[in-house]
Amino acid sequence: MVYQPGEAYDYPLIIKKLLNTPLVYSPDQEIVYRDQLRFTYRDLRQRIGRLGSMLDGLGVGKGDVVAVMDYDSHRFLECFFAIPMMGAVLQMVNWRLSVEQILYTLNHANARVLVVNTDFLPMLEKMRDRLESVETVVVMKEQGNSLTLSFPIAGHYERLLETGDPGYEFPDLDENTVATTFYTTGTTGNPKGVYFTHRQLVLHTLAGAAAVGAYDSVGRFRSGDVYMPLTPMFHVHAWGMPYLATLLGVKQVYPGRYEPEMLLKLIVSEGVTFSHCVPTILQMITANPAVKAFDLSKWKVVIGGARLPRGLAESAWDMGITVYTGYGMSESCPIISLGMPGSDWESLDRDVLMDTVVKTGRPVPLAEVEVVDEVGRFLPHDGVSTGEVVFRAPWLTQGYVDDEARSAELWRDGWLYSGDVGVIDENGYLQVTDRMKDVIKTGGEWVSSLDLENILSRHEAVLESAAIGVPHEKWGERPVMIVHLKPEYVGSVGSEDLRGYLKEAAEKGDIPSYGIPDAFELVDDIPKTSVGKLDKKKMRSDFR
Amino acid sequence: MVYQPGEAYDYPLIIKKLLNTPLVYSPDQEIVYRDQLRFTYRDLRQRIGRLGSMLDGLGVGKGDVVAVMDYDSHRFLECFFAIPMMGAVLQMVNWRLSVEQILYTLNHANARVLVVNTDFLPMLEKMRDRLESVETVVVMKEQGNSLTLSFPIAGHYERLLETGDPGYEFPDLDENTVATTFYTTGTTGNPKGVYFTHRQLVLHTLAGAAAVGAYDSVGRFRSGDVYMPLTPMFHVHAWGMPYLATLLGVKQVYPGRYEPEMLLKLIVSEGVTFSHCVPTILQMITANPAVKAFDLSKWKVVIGGARLPRGLAESAWDMGITVYTGYGMSESCPIISLGMPGSDWESLDRDVLMDTVVKTGRPVPLAEVEVVDEVGRFLPHDGVSTGEVVFRAPWLTQGYVDDEARSAELWRDGWLYSGDVGVIDENGYLQVTDRMKDVIKTGGEWVSSLDLENILSRHEAVLESAAIGVPHEKWGERPVMIVHLKPEYVGSVGSEDLRGYLKEAAEKGDIPSYGIPDAFELVDDIPKTSVGKLDKKKMRSDFR
Repeated sequence: MVYQPGEAYDYPLIIKKLLNTPLVYSPDQEIVYRDQLRFTYRDLRQRIGRLGSMLDGLGVGKGDVVAVMDYDSHRFLECFFAIPMMGAVLQMVNWRLSVEQILYTLNHANARVLVVNTDFLPMLEKMRDRLESVETVVVMKEQGNSLTLSFPIAGHYERLLETGDPGYEFPDLDENTVATTFYTTGTTGNPKGVYFTHRQLVLHTLAGAAAVGAYDSVGRFRSGDVYMPLTPMFHVHAWGMPYLATLLGVKQVYPGRYEPEMLLKLIVSEGVTFSHCVPTILQMITANPAVKAFDLSKWKVVIGGARLPRGLAESAWDMGITVYTGYGMSESCPIISLGMPGSDWESLDRDVLMDTVVKTGRPVPLAEVEVVDEVGRFLPHDGVSTGEVVFRAPWLTQGYVDDEARSAELWRDGWLYSGDVGVIDENGYLQVTDRMKDVIKTGGEWVSSLDLENILSRHEAVLESAAIGVPHEKWGERPVMIVHLKPEYVGSVGSEDLRGYLKEAAEKGDIPSYGIPDAFELVDDIPKTSVGKLDKKKMRSDFR
Repeated sequence: MVYQPGEAYDYPLIIKKLLNTPLVYSPDQEIVYRDQLRFTYRDLRQRIGRLGSMLDGLGVGKGDVVAVMDYDSHRFLECFFAIPMMGAVLQMVNWRLSVEQILYTLNHANARVLVVNTDFLPMLEKMRDRLESVETVVVMKEQGNSLTLSFPIAGHYERLLETGDPGYEFPDLDENTVATTFYTTGTTGNPKGVYFTHRQLVLHTLAGAAAVGAYDSVGRFRSGDVYMPLTPMFHVHAWGMPYLATLLGVKQVYPGRYEPEMLLKLIVSEGVTFSHCVPTILQMITANPAVKAFDLSKWKVVIGGARLPRGLAESAWDMGITVYTGYGMSESCPIISLGMPGSDWESLDRDVLMDTVVKTGRPVPLAEVEVVDEVGRFLPHDGVSTGEVVFRAPWLTQGYVDDEARSAELWRDGWLYSGDVGVIDENGYLQVTDRMKDVIKTGGEWVSSLDLENILSRHEAVLESAAIGVPHEKWGERPVMIVHLKPEYVGSVGSEDLRGYLKEAAEKGDIPSYGIPDAFELVDDIPKTSVGKLDKKKMRSDFR
């Protein structure tokens, strides 16, 4: 059998192609920025053209890194497309990091151009003399900001766009061209750079469209939805959702800087139906007194980045919000699994439903997930066997930028080692129970810090809690919990009440008896990392 | 920026991967064969393992061609997976071709193994001494058939499966490995072999899942649907739908040999909600007197392979069937565009709705469609400019097997030339108006034979019609129509009535006045090709 390739078009999976469908299906659909701006997909395509043309004019070529520091905005969306579509690499900068860390990531990524919101110029001032690769700065002016600059800029985003060519033609590229990069901070060492190719992002988008569209579920995201991100766009491509939202041609709402009142206002006035965030953001919204005045019953929210506490899930569902969990990480683009309840959810027992939505879900199409023991053997899917979560999918970072040692730790035997501890049940649902480094090892047994936090979240007096292992001479480690009480309970609820509550949980078999914490530390504020996660490294040092 | 690939898994887009999701999401869902057999996806995976193991035992290796001749069955579904998953090539044999043509395709494809339904053994007998490459024959026994064989067989499909290993492990493959091949018959020359790789079929499936799942529409196909093919599985992978249905984990119903009563019975008893077929099959079902007793209001049917006559669309919608058009061809795997009405269809004017569903639709995600003039320039999307339809997508045959000349005609300047004539409107809907070779060229103008047929289909007396160009000294060609009247109108309706009907259409501007046919030939049966299309080549020769 002889095949003749002839003059066929070898269709590359490149980001440019994702724009075709919305421009045919819904060219008049809107992109909205706060209460300030709205334009159509037709305009979006033109603005992307102008941006490509502008960057071309600034000398950006294939392989050049263009770093962006911005809130969640239409501008960032434009950068999501135009920069990779040129063959350049979009670096998403986490502006919540310290100035030193940001400086490290810009230098390490070798960023040549920096596109920066005026709000972050004071940070830039502090690092300007130490930027090793940045040659060109473009500023994006936030409404109401006055601009004072002590260093030369190439120009203002909007003004430069005006001079760009809306019909600018983007080239076809090899699908394995790197499209994006960003840095993830561990608790030790320098931030690590992950990177994703055009092919990976296109496949992540297509599989995502199938996962949230083609399977009947209450958590679906389809062309009739209205999207607003509540995970920063610098954080794992806002979970890749801006690419998916664009492919679907949905109305997209970008909230800029996160302000609870503005978020609520946009959700209601723009009719937002689909978002994603970490639990703390959902907590911030549901705990806002203003929320009672609004109907949030059309709002679906995927929770990720940290475990969804059952108490928070329950109060969100009580408000009519459809909340469920997704799983992934910076290294995974990020979507690996989703815990969407099926469209038969209304027939489910409330407890079963809540059990489902707090689980980290089932693998999306093309993703493969296993849990393995200490020597890498697959463990059974029995709801009991606990091990490290490993996965593979066509959209995982192939390593860390310029870091052979940590790349080698990440990938072993063809599987990406997540550093998460989890268990898979008979129905294929993964439950992540801890981070490998946070699991509390006491007397040779593992106690899940997340289990302890999850149970305590259901105590009426508890606003938030964190469980850590503190060194213990006899047992190796013993669990201790750091607890933030709701203001109205401060003084009336104490350690003994909390210990009693967990003792009851142990009697019911929800945790082992050796998992009952030795101590409860009541605090006014629980330490968080720059992306809003519990900072257990700090707590372990503070409370040892 | 230095990237470190490390030990990462380079995830290939291979057919094996499509089985992962249904085995997690819906392992207990059913596959049904007629009223004879039903088993689960878990069983399907085991049967695929057994089949791979059995073929392995018969000496099938990578690149070997395994030809299958069967009705639409669970067995064929198993072959769709197991054969390519071994790295072998599945040849789908069109058993409606003549013995000589089938012989040609088996020899041309270099088929080593033939898996054949007992119903087709008489055909095999006629070609057995002339088969050049087939070494091994496996027979699939159809219930009720007695088996007489004059040549040696390797065994019976079911019995060989019993000895196979259900846990047989399929290897990872290069995603560009050829997975399938089949032959398409033109009106001239030998059948042409097209071929598709694993990557192409996986991308066709994923984009298909997005197209019919992620966009709100009345024609959607999602995990809650029940699928039954009504386009033969040998014909362009039954439009690739068995792969998609499997990824979605839906209940699948295979009807075996097409018998109207059995089809109707299965649609109703199994609750079939999604099918696809050529217009003649829909015609056969809707014209069946028994149909009036059944509720078909949950049935969605995609029509392809030939233009959906508006009259047929109307009567199907009147019965509650959701009918719309898809577009593609053997060379395109096949899905290129779909004419699904949006979920707002009930608010549409009936005429607008019918206009939409008879159009060939809008490109599915990743597909790109244009119409070009005679020198290959893109024509505007204005609903008027007519030219040859060209497209590209990540799943098109890269050429014809062993046929450099016809491959070079197929692909030009990076676009696949479809041989279809069409027009694209302002909303991106493609309307195929004719085949390049069937368009009637009269006095320097083009008349669409499909337009003439479409209009005449709405005449109450007309069951079916075909328009052809016959040579004419002055005008080059003139249109003539071959008409099959409904039995009850034979004798009472004649050529003059039909001409009057088309004259009215010309007066309304639906066709140009030079498009009114010169003659109407009343016949009892309109010549068809082996796949049920109008055989215009024969008609042009019969009626010249």
